[in-house]
Amino acid sequence: MLTRVKSAVASFMGGIMAVSSINNNERSGGSDLPLKYPYMRPKFLGLSPDEIECSADHIARPILILKETCRLPWATGYAEVINAGKSALNEDQACCEVVLVKKKPIGPLTPRKTATSRRRSSLPNSVDMGMWENDACICPQDSEGLIFHYWALFDGHAGSGAAVVASRLLHQHIVEQLQGVLEVLSNLTSLPPTVLGDEPSHHPSPCTHRALTRAASLRGATGAPGSPCTPPTRFFVEKKIHHESLVIGALENAFKDMDAQIEREKSIYNISGGCTVLVVVFLLGKLYVANAGDSRAIIIRNGEIIPMSTEFTPESERQRLQFLGFMQPHLLGGEFTHLEFPRRVQRKEVGKKMLYRDFTMTGWAYKTIEDEDLRFPLIYGEGKKARVMATIGVTRGLGDHDLKVHDSNIYIKPFLSCFPEVKMYNLTQYEHGADDVLVMGTDGLWDVLSNEEVAETVTSFLANCDPDDLHRYTMAAQDLVMRARGVLRDQGWRIDNDRLGSGDDISVYIIPLMYGNRQP
Amino acid sequence: MLTRVKSAVASFMGGIMAVSSINNNERSGGSDLPLKYPYMRPKFLGLSPDEIECSADHIARPILILKETCRLPWATGYAEVINAGKSALNEDQACCEVVLVKKKPIGPLTPRKTATSRRRSSLPNSVDMGMWENDACICPQDSEGLIFHYWALFDGHAGSGAAVVASRLLHQHIVEQLQGVLEVLSNLTSLPPTVLGDEPSHHPSPCTHRALTRAASLRGATGAPGSPCTPPTRFFVEKKIHHESLVIGALENAFKDMDAQIEREKSIYNISGGCTVLVVVFLLGKLYVANAGDSRAIIIRNGEIIPMSTEFTPESERQRLQFLGFMQPHLLGGEFTHLEFPRRVQRKEVGKKMLYRDFTMTGWAYKTIEDEDLRFPLIYGEGKKARVMATIGVTRGLGDHDLKVHDSNIYIKPFLSCFPEVKMYNLTQYEHGADDVLVMGTDGLWDVLSNEEVAETVTSFLANCDPDDLHRYTMAAQDLVMRARGVLRDQGWRIDNDRLGSGDDISVYIIPLMYGNRQP
Repeated sequence: MLTRVKSAVASFMGGIMAVSSINNNERSGGSDLPLKYPYMRPKFLGLSPDEIECSADHIARPILILKETCRLPWATGYAEVINAGKSALNEDQACCEVVLVKKKPIGPLTPRKTATSRRRSSLPNSVDMGMWENDACICPQDSEGLIFHYWALFDGHAGSGAAVVASRLLHQHIVEQLQGVLEVLSNLTSLPPTVLGDEPSHHPSPCTHRALTRAASLRGATGAPGSPCTPPTRFFVEKKIHHESLVIGALENAFKDMDAQIEREKSIYNISGGCTVLVVVFLLGKLYVANAGDSRAIIIRNGEIIPMSTEFTPESERQRLQFLGFMQPHLLGGEFTHLEFPRRVQRKEVGKKMLYRDFTMTGWAYKTIEDEDLRFPLIYGEGKKARVMATIGVTRGLGDHDLKVHDSNIYIKPFLSCFPEVKMYNLTQYEHGADDVLVMGTDGLWDVLSNEEVAETVTSFLANCDPDDLHRYTMAAQDLVMRARGVLRDQGWRIDNDRLGSGDDISVYIIPLMYGNRQP
Repeated sequence: MLTRVKSAVASFMGGIMAVSSINNNERSGGSDLPLKYPYMRPKFLGLSPDEIECSADHIARPILILKETCRLPWATGYAEVINAGKSALNEDQACCEVVLVKKKPIGPLTPRKTATSRRRSSLPNSVDMGMWENDACICPQDSEGLIFHYWALFDGHAGSGAAVVASRLLHQHIVEQLQGVLEVLSNLTSLPPTVLGDEPSHHPSPCTHRALTRAASLRGATGAPGSPCTPPTRFFVEKKIHHESLVIGALENAFKDMDAQIEREKSIYNISGGCTVLVVVFLLGKLYVANAGDSRAIIIRNGEIIPMSTEFTPESERQRLQFLGFMQPHLLGGEFTHLEFPRRVQRKEVGKKMLYRDFTMTGWAYKTIEDEDLRFPLIYGEGKKARVMATIGVTRGLGDHDLKVHDSNIYIKPFLSCFPEVKMYNLTQYEHGADDVLVMGTDGLWDVLSNEEVAETVTSFLANCDPDDLHRYTMAAQDLVMRARGVLRDQGWRIDNDRLGSGDDISVYIIPLMYGNRQP
């Protein structure tokens, strides 16, 4: 296996391909506006411009890995490979940082411009960025503020613009959001206050609001539950919100702010396409996995698989999308129906009974086909071929503000959501060994390898490595990408059991969890 | 335990309470319209009118059980108890039937009025209805049609009207829905046809529709996936729908039809309130559990608990409700905000930062309070006290068409959904012993006992019964209701460890699963 990997890397190092012209075309994307950031590969790979060009070889498909001299926090492993030709550039992007959320010098809360993040190193190639040996000594409540670790994958479509911008800026938005709750997060001894800068109040104010006077509500215990004015004791029952919920809220709103920034700035910059986002944040002993799209994260702990994300696709979000189309039919532009059918309805089938399902159903039933059922279904296709409005196969992410149904004036964006689902994992609750890892991968990985195959591959690879070799997680990531890409044979990329390899961009982090336990 | 149960039953048999006047008031509910059906207890209990009156003793709270001479299909056990005074009548209802879906004599599909169900017995007290010994011999594909077993619990609120009506009619709507797919379900050798009465077509019709001409879509495999006109082979890819999906769709639409009937008929009948619904259907070797509300079903198999439903409450459906309120703000009547706060906002807090969350969030963040945040939150309260619009604590069910926010013209119904979630369990896939059961209970049970406590109670009770005693499941149900109700002590109902017993109506089925395996 290692031989094969090495030869792939070698073919990259010696690879030659004139991609400049392609890049330039794709970079401009037909727009006269300047790019906000140039196309790039992850900074931590430390590639020269020449190397970046060579990496886009769709024939050799070299696997790029972290150089031995480059280190990511916690000795995280990373590997990536470009697609087999579906786009000129690798539309995946990645970012990994150790970030300081600084206390703001004055005033109460978050004037937008003061947000800052301090990277552990300012060297352009990030050679010593976040040396994990040092991280272990860093107090997460640095006197200057709060430190978090950040790993992110972005999978772009219809251009690399949104993915590049998000990979450069999303963590800044997380910083801004966390700054707003920095003081609250710094005081773990009491629950976050409901109102900032207020002493907890125990004196009910007069019930002036009309809703307050409402009578007993239904289906409660005996008495008048929920009616907030009845006994004063009840009126002041407050939900207890925990610190973790504030981090989750910060991540959710950071995604929203990032998306809003892309929308604002697309009038002055060329920010093409959209991107999915998978983010892992380690803060105060806990891992937060925020996912918007179809990338995936799993934890492998003692051989057991713990899914840390779920994918958002036209199929998994069918009911939400149909519900939106049903409630706001103008979004369908008179061309789409919010109903689902097993295939396109044909005109000659009007009046017949055909299987369908509505947003209220998970089962199917027959309905008499009417003229308006001839419209194209909002959700159509199965598995990886499922699409929203025949256009896009993923339903969460950033960007895509200009995306329209082909040859129409119907925007897709209202159906796409920029909000992530956030799952939490309490790292300090478990002892982790050297082979316990979190694997993050774009869909190029998971389309061809199951969770079980990934876990088996990583676990058996690590078992054969020197446990003290800090490069082992990168070698494992490389092995994983290799297995998902496969080898070029008979005009196609093939993996184990002669299955098709992934023709997509593939990017993989392997994050060892034991370093998290070393944090105070 | 048995002694306590017997004394409770005895107190019922000798109980005297003049509830007629209360009943009459509650029955009319201030309406001049006639009742569609009179208040009742489940037919299969075989109670006389006198016994029904006596059952509503809020002091003795007698536990009603199936008489030894009454049998439900599969020797199902059943027990119930009235609430401790929160409503004059027991607002729970139950229905259990073995139902035949008859072939329709002529014509294509489902003229509404021809739907019929044949009960196994026409005796009014259902004494020999669905004798389980005979059931085992009944072919589910009777020459006359298809047979299904049906168990249902209805938990009413704001009156017993909707619960009574639904307990009398819901299975008829299931029959109607299944009649529409009867022929398809009778042919298990091939998948349900996409179009009824059509030979499968393999000739693409010309792509006349504009949407068909759309170009390559994003984020697919290479090529032009999803664009349905490109290669004809792709155009005719159809989703494969399985027979089980048709049963699920039939159940979903039967709930909708039942709700529509209540809405139609409330202009001519007095149908008060609303009700949750929990239904179990056994058809062609599979159990389908359809739930709309906060009742619950679990399977206990070899001591292991398999949840067969999830509850729909303001908390579990928060995001759906907030999303609806956000998209259709007129439904909030200018009185409610779709945002959630940990407690009511006070006027003096305008301008301060307070915790909130929107429909896009599971975490919390701070926002600056504005005037419109002083509106009452759409979702308010925690746990059993959580309410939609300060009014109702359950978010799925039937009826409630007239329900408004107190002292306002704001209807709750748009936020309530009549659609169930349906889970399937393949009964024939497992061998079941005599102690493997499905437990169905209204929230009165689950509010005070956890899944684990219920499983432990049932399992240890059954272990001490004669396995050949057909009454054992009813005795187990009685024991369960007893443990959830507790005993009256110091002015309150108390259960184990001096916890509060349930003051709510409690109804419980215990369905042994081994009889399902005996079906062909």
